[in-house]
Amino acid sequence: MAKPKVSRKAERRRRRRHAKARDLHTEAGTLTVDPEAPAPAVNVCGYGPDGFEPGKGHETGELKRLRSRWPVTWVHVVGLGDAAVIEGLGHTFGIHRLALADVVHDQQRPKVQRWGDVTQIVARMVDEVGSTQTEQLSIFVGRDFVLSFEERKGELFEALRERLRSDVGDVRQGKSDFLAYALLDAVIDAFFPVVEQIGDELDQIEDDLPAMSQPQLTPRLRTVKHDLLHIRRALWPLRDVLGGLASGQCPHVQDETRNYLRDCQDHCAQLIDIVGTYRELSADLVDLQISVSGQRLNEVMKVLTVMATVFIPLTFVSSIYGMNFDPEVSPLNMPELKWYWGYPFALGLMGAMALGLLVYFRRRGWI
Amino acid sequence: MAKPKVSRKAERRRRRRHAKARDLHTEAGTLTVDPEAPAPAVNVCGYGPDGFEPGKGHETGELKRLRSRWPVTWVHVVGLGDAAVIEGLGHTFGIHRLALADVVHDQQRPKVQRWGDVTQIVARMVDEVGSTQTEQLSIFVGRDFVLSFEERKGELFEALRERLRSDVGDVRQGKSDFLAYALLDAVIDAFFPVVEQIGDELDQIEDDLPAMSQPQLTPRLRTVKHDLLHIRRALWPLRDVLGGLASGQCPHVQDETRNYLRDCQDHCAQLIDIVGTYRELSADLVDLQISVSGQRLNEVMKVLTVMATVFIPLTFVSSIYGMNFDPEVSPLNMPELKWYWGYPFALGLMGAMALGLLVYFRRRGWI
Amino acid sequence: MAKPKVSRKAERRRRRRHAKARDLHTEAGTLTVDPEAPAPAVNVCGYGPDGFEPGKGHETGELKRLRSRWPVTWVHVVGLGDAAVIEGLGHTFGIHRLALADVVHDQQRPKVQRWGDVTQIVARMVDEVGSTQTEQLSIFVGRDFVLSFEERKGELFEALRERLRSDVGDVRQGKSDFLAYALLDAVIDAFFPVVEQIGDELDQIEDDLPAMSQPQLTPRLRTVKHDLLHIRRALWPLRDVLGGLASGQCPHVQDETRNYLRDCQDHCAQLIDIVGTYRELSADLVDLQISVSGQRLNEVMKVLTVMATVFIPLTFVSSIYGMNFDPEVSPLNMPELKWYWGYPFALGLMGAMALGLLVYFRRRGWI
Amino acid sequence: MAKPKVSRKAERRRRRRHAKARDLHTEAGTLTVDPEAPAPAVNVCGYGPDGFEPGKGHETGELKRLRSRWPVTWVHVVGLGDAAVIEGLGHTFGIHRLALADVVHDQQRPKVQRWGDVTQIVARMVDEVGSTQTEQLSIFVGRDFVLSFEERKGELFEALRERLRSDVGDVRQGKSDFLAYALLDAVIDAFFPVVEQIGDELDQIEDDLPAMSQPQLTPRLRTVKHDLLHIRRALWPLRDVLGGLASGQCPHVQDETRNYLRDCQDHCAQLIDIVGTYRELSADLVDLQISVSGQRLNEVMKVLTVMATVFIPLTFVSSIYGMNFDPEVSPLNMPELKWYWGYPFALGLMGAMALGLLVYFRRRGWI
Amino acid sequence: MAKPKVSRKAERRRRRRHAKARDLHTEAGTLTVDPEAPAPAVNVCGYGPDGFEPGKGHETGELKRLRSRWPVTWVHVVGLGDAAVIEGLGHTFGIHRLALADVVHDQQRPKVQRWGDVTQIVARMVDEVGSTQTEQLSIFVGRDFVLSFEERKGELFEALRERLRSDVGDVRQGKSDFLAYALLDAVIDAFFPVVEQIGDELDQIEDDLPAMSQPQLTPRLRTVKHDLLHIRRALWPLRDVLGGLASGQCPHVQDETRNYLRDCQDHCAQLIDIVGTYRELSADLVDLQISVSGQRLNEVMKVLTVMATVFIPLTFVSSIYGMNFDPEVSPLNMPELKWYWGYPFALGLMGAMALGLLVYFRRRGWI
Repeated sequence: MAKPKVSRKAERRRRRRHAKARDLHTEAGTLTVDPEAPAPAVNVCGYGPDGFEPGKGHETGELKRLRSRWPVTWVHVVGLGDAAVIEGLGHTFGIHRLALADVVHDQQRPKVQRWGDVTQIVARMVDEVGSTQTEQLSIFVGRDFVLSFEERKGELFEALRERLRSDVGDVRQGKSDFLAYALLDAVIDAFFPVVEQIGDELDQIEDDLPAMSQPQLTPRLRTVKHDLLHIRRALWPLRDVLGGLASGQCPHVQDETRNYLRDCQDHCAQLIDIVGTYRELSADLVDLQISVSGQRLNEVMKVLTVMATVFIPLTFVSSIYGMNFDPEVSPLNMPELKWYWGYPFALGLMGAMALGLLVYFRRRGWI
Repeated sequence: MAKPKVSRKAERRRRRRHAKARDLHTEAGTLTVDPEAPAPAVNVCGYGPDGFEPGKGHETGELKRLRSRWPVTWVHVVGLGDAAVIEGLGHTFGIHRLALADVVHDQQRPKVQRWGDVTQIVARMVDEVGSTQTEQLSIFVGRDFVLSFEERKGELFEALRERLRSDVGDVRQGKSDFLAYALLDAVIDAFFPVVEQIGDELDQIEDDLPAMSQPQLTPRLRTVKHDLLHIRRALWPLRDVLGGLASGQCPHVQDETRNYLRDCQDHCAQLIDIVGTYRELSADLVDLQISVSGQRLNEVMKVLTVMATVFIPLTFVSSIYGMNFDPEVSPLNMPELKWYWGYPFALGLMGAMALGLLVYFRRRGWI
Repeated sequence: MAKPKVSRKAERRRRRRHAKARDLHTEAGTLTVDPEAPAPAVNVCGYGPDGFEPGKGHETGELKRLRSRWPVTWVHVVGLGDAAVIEGLGHTFGIHRLALADVVHDQQRPKVQRWGDVTQIVARMVDEVGSTQTEQLSIFVGRDFVLSFEERKGELFEALRERLRSDVGDVRQGKSDFLAYALLDAVIDAFFPVVEQIGDELDQIEDDLPAMSQPQLTPRLRTVKHDLLHIRRALWPLRDVLGGLASGQCPHVQDETRNYLRDCQDHCAQLIDIVGTYRELSADLVDLQISVSGQRLNEVMKVLTVMATVFIPLTFVSSIYGMNFDPEVSPLNMPELKWYWGYPFALGLMGAMALGLLVYFRRRGWI
Repeated sequence: MAKPKVSRKAERRRRRRHAKARDLHTEAGTLTVDPEAPAPAVNVCGYGPDGFEPGKGHETGELKRLRSRWPVTWVHVVGLGDAAVIEGLGHTFGIHRLALADVVHDQQRPKVQRWGDVTQIVARMVDEVGSTQTEQLSIFVGRDFVLSFEERKGELFEALRERLRSDVGDVRQGKSDFLAYALLDAVIDAFFPVVEQIGDELDQIEDDLPAMSQPQLTPRLRTVKHDLLHIRRALWPLRDVLGGLASGQCPHVQDETRNYLRDCQDHCAQLIDIVGTYRELSADLVDLQISVSGQRLNEVMKVLTVMATVFIPLTFVSSIYGMNFDPEVSPLNMPELKWYWGYPFALGLMGAMALGLLVYFRRRGWI
Repeated sequence: MAKPKVSRKAERRRRRRHAKARDLHTEAGTLTVDPEAPAPAVNVCGYGPDGFEPGKGHETGELKRLRSRWPVTWVHVVGLGDAAVIEGLGHTFGIHRLALADVVHDQQRPKVQRWGDVTQIVARMVDEVGSTQTEQLSIFVGRDFVLSFEERKGELFEALRERLRSDVGDVRQGKSDFLAYALLDAVIDAFFPVVEQIGDELDQIEDDLPAMSQPQLTPRLRTVKHDLLHIRRALWPLRDVLGGLASGQCPHVQDETRNYLRDCQDHCAQLIDIVGTYRELSADLVDLQISVSGQRLNEVMKVLTVMATVFIPLTFVSSIYGMNFDPEVSPLNMPELKWYWGYPFALGLMGAMALGLLVYFRRRGWI
């Protein structure tokens, strides 16, 4: 599985420091930027059915020009490390400051919310193809623009930009709503390889389970369970977001786009379904592991019991004949020691006992 | 149980390769055909109350002729290996390209969706009678046609086609909605033998459980649990599909057909009910297995404890009299060795100890 | 607990054979009669506030006469072994063939469904008072008739018929809807003794648990759990059936009868409540059994540990003095053997070790 | 914890006998009195803002007089052992016979139901303050009367009657709806001490858990779990009852009283909340008990293993030198026995082995 | 983790004593003050966009003056130990006595309720930043005032008061509804550090788990689980409270404030989400602990089994040759003792046996 760019635990620690920083003295709607977040890289373009123009920077004037020239203007920001840039863009497009604050407070639940003329969409997406680490994607959809923010550089939207530039497919025919759909579609599609990787890992764990020990398997199983938990938390509200958009929560979504959104929602539901099945499979694997472990203990104990139970009486018999009672002082004192067949008799006795016990164990199916 | 045509794991791997292939560069609505899928075999016919005519190929002209001649035209495609054929049919019948893409992307959740005049139905059905492997069935119902796609060749719809050809029963009296119902009814009916096979296997496992070891039973129980999970996933949304059709989601469904669909939905609910009960039974069997395994460990430990506890003190006594203290140098040094009744005394002591311990164990109910 | 007439497993097998027989070639609405089902016994009567007349057979003419003469005609069929009889009655009373097919396909979920002027009610009832085996009861209610089918002969409705015949209570004052209610009320009431028997058995198992072994208890607990599962499956949808009837799903149900149906629904809810509690109790008993079993293992292991741990060091000491080092060749070779107090010293050493260990175990609370 | 007046099991048995008695021959609406129930004691009074008058008996005439004289007449019956009394009162106040039958059939689910002008309320209340045993309370509220039935004598409503008599608080200002509220409020308030007792017991069990053995703890934990189950079953539907009344299901409930009922419903919800938390805590305690028990087994096994593993090799070495090979016949036969340092060498060997093993166990953290 | 001011158990005991005190003789709506509660400290102020004035005491006259002078008057009471103060304030602001009683009866479920012109909000908040102990916050919002009660002195609202005083941010621009929002926002924000502390502790426990013993880990895990349970109980209804306010349940809430409340509700949902994830993680840790403990037992048993199984046969062989059969009386009596290679043969035999067993164990993967 591709390593996530940052380890999950480190990420979690960073987020907690950030959460603690958001202290009681700040009002809601304040942009508290995580100081460790990368500096924003802003990518601007305008397009329409008859052309595509990369923007020159993200100054208000340039954005105004693009918006008047092209049916759709797309501003895509990667990295949330500079409050000024985000606030500037927010101001240019008339975004409510509470909505803007959501952009930098990562760990939002996916949601869709209308702010007058602009629709805010929050989603979680995988960091890069094949990673189980997720980041937050914020999309603002207006009549003639899409403003999107992602936390870290990833290649998820490269293909989409390429399709826009080279006019492959229908994206350039669509309005801003179709671009928003295309972004969400890329987000959903990128979950498929991750989920299938987890499926492969589950198959692998199942194959390895009978031969491997608990300390080797447990961390792998835990990783899988956490990944599934994580992905489910990202997808579950995303389905409602897509459903909300498909059923008309955003005023700019056109009827044809709704079909696409419904298709996208189907894919999301399908992912949730698979994740659900994988969760059941991983729970089964935990049970299986306990069962295998119990089985191993049973086997260990059987070996011990058979060995101990067979040899303990034999040793007892031989220790009997190791006693030092003096046969001289009494004919009752261990006369066997003086017998002609004494030794063979003792060996035979032991052999018979061992045989009897072995037959008994065989009957019980222990050997 | 009849072997599925392809093993589940192999199937899963194939699907994952396919899922990964569906990469980020393709737009939604693109027909990405799985290269390992079988080539399509197209079966065309037209019928009405007064006749049945097998079609000659699936060219647009021939389909047009059949549609103008017969009240219902049925095109059934087996195998999804050729995008051109599927796209051609889709074009002929005016199917939306997103709906067509669902046909080749197997692993869709069962659903019903209206696309203008055409209703799309996605269901999962067993590969063949008695198999627990499922495949995807896509049905498009128009006013005067039914277009259906199945992944692999199976005999599920043979009986239906025969009933059409020889005018047995009411199918030929019905419109396209009745044909769609008849297809779904065959799908639901084919689940019954599978579910009952699983019931037989559960009974068998319960009978075998006390005598068999964990490594023999666990895979059987796991197979049953996975099959039930799999079937439930297929049936659960199918019930909603049938409910949606019965309550008027499809414009061509006539009132009389709704009764049939409701009946079909009842059967589906009944199947879900049985699957639910079997899931509880299999969970109980897992508990029972753990309990039996614990019981066995208890028994093993009891045998060990009884044997060890009885013989360890005896061996201790005999090892006492095996010590080499010199009775010559002191009258206190093991005078028992010189006693006339020394050996019988030692044996008697051991016998008494053994008897005491056995009585104790008997009292505790261990032997 | 009263033995069910047929064992559950045998019943299950029969049903599966039947399910498999219902093959893919039969259309929905076909009456596939189970060949092992008993032949139908038909009991016909007409009644009203001023009289009661047993019918003479179930020919169409006789039924017509009764319907024109009495406000309510009741036809009760016991045994589903003859498709002709069932179809004849269905034809006489104008029952839809899909509804009729439900009669012979036992294992329907309880439901209520309107077919034009006739309301179909499917319920599950206990075979006889005190049995945990259930069978299917189908009731068709028309304006002036009730047609009911039960699988096997039971005495559940004898009391009701007697009340009709001797005009005890209000049944004869009621219309067909009240008769249907009275049938359902008898069905619900017959569940009470069964559920209470299960409660007695649970109390009994709880009392027996500390003394009995797992192989004796497990089957009893399993039987209880399956019975509860079975009863819950019968009652859960029945409550909705009664709720549906009480809230006006059936056109013939009069306002006064609705009060009675609501009362009946309360009883059903109460049963479901008790069954729920008993399910929690039986789950608790499984936990208790595991806990008792673990406790037993703990005790067995403590006995083994105490015995082994006390005697193993003693045996070691005595085996030391059983070594054959030659005290002649060296004054260092086991001089203890030649000591005057050698043997008492050795015994004392062992005694002190044993005492020390026993004190240690006592301190830990193991003995 | 205060002992309930009757043991839970005895109560359960009684109820079952009663349930079985309610046989199939009785119609719904028949008053089948439990022969073991106490004889009814009827307490009648009338009151209004300007006075309070204890009634003289419960004859129809007297009740009529009170109803015409006072705004509210309250008839409270303790003990359900006489059908005639209950039917008489029911007749006087015009109660439907199905509603009356609910009074004697204890074990009803709490509910609220309108019968024309009278509202029937069924609740469960604790037997007396501090008891976990519950009984059924039936309240009938009319425009100018409240008729209430409780199973056994308890002091729950004494304080309320005293407040009425001495005109403390607002009760006398209220109409019949306020009296009904006051009864339900007393019922809810009496659950608080019971629930808090259970909380104390849970704290106590948690404190005792590390030191006590499973057979001592299990019954206490089981009692707590059953009490919680029992109380939850009583409270859950009661909340809906209160909600129903507060939202206008009863025609006589005035707006001001609704505020009080909502307050009462809040208390009920709070109780359900606490009961839910206690259920989770008791489930945690079961887990803790299993964990402690496993921990104990681990410790027992470690002691056994350390002791056995240290001494078994030592004993082996000493038994080697206890062999009787004749050093005379061969210089290879146990020459150690003749060595000058033989015995110290053997002891040293054993000491080294023991030390090595102890170091090994220390490293693994077992000692 | 910061210690709560009072231990949870002591707090629980106090509350129970209080609950019992609330006896059956008191009517609802009576202010039963907990005698151990701290005396109230009342903090009064009035403010508007153009100023802020601290009040001089909380007499009715002074409050009247402030209300006529400033758009918003805020009265904040810390400590609920004096019924007179609370009743006085309640009277001044026209609060219903049932609502006032809720203030002193802590342990209310968070809720929002309208009482005519005043909206009552009950919430639970952490005692102080970083504590897991919660207390009750009651807020009454009128057109021109906010009256708030908290149980114990905490610094949660200091920052808010400071923002009011120094006119930082928008609070002074808002009406009473915005002040209520600001209080609730502070409450929600204070939960974040607590929840993240719990996350840190979970990470720490996971790191410590493989090395630590069960008695060390269990209390930590239990504390975490109880804290999460506690926090979830506080947050779950709080989300509904915020949702209710955001959707217009309070008449004074203005449209702009609703956006803020929705933002606050999002944060609450996010907290619930994290708490849910942490609950799953802690459940996983319990499973992991059981698995680690089982693994340890397995290892202990393996060591015991390997040691015992290897040495028991060896000891048996050596005890054979320790028998005292007299080789003189018979050539069959232990001739090995007289062999030239006897001792090496015996040693070799033992070595071979040990080797064989070790190879066997190695093959099974036990060593």
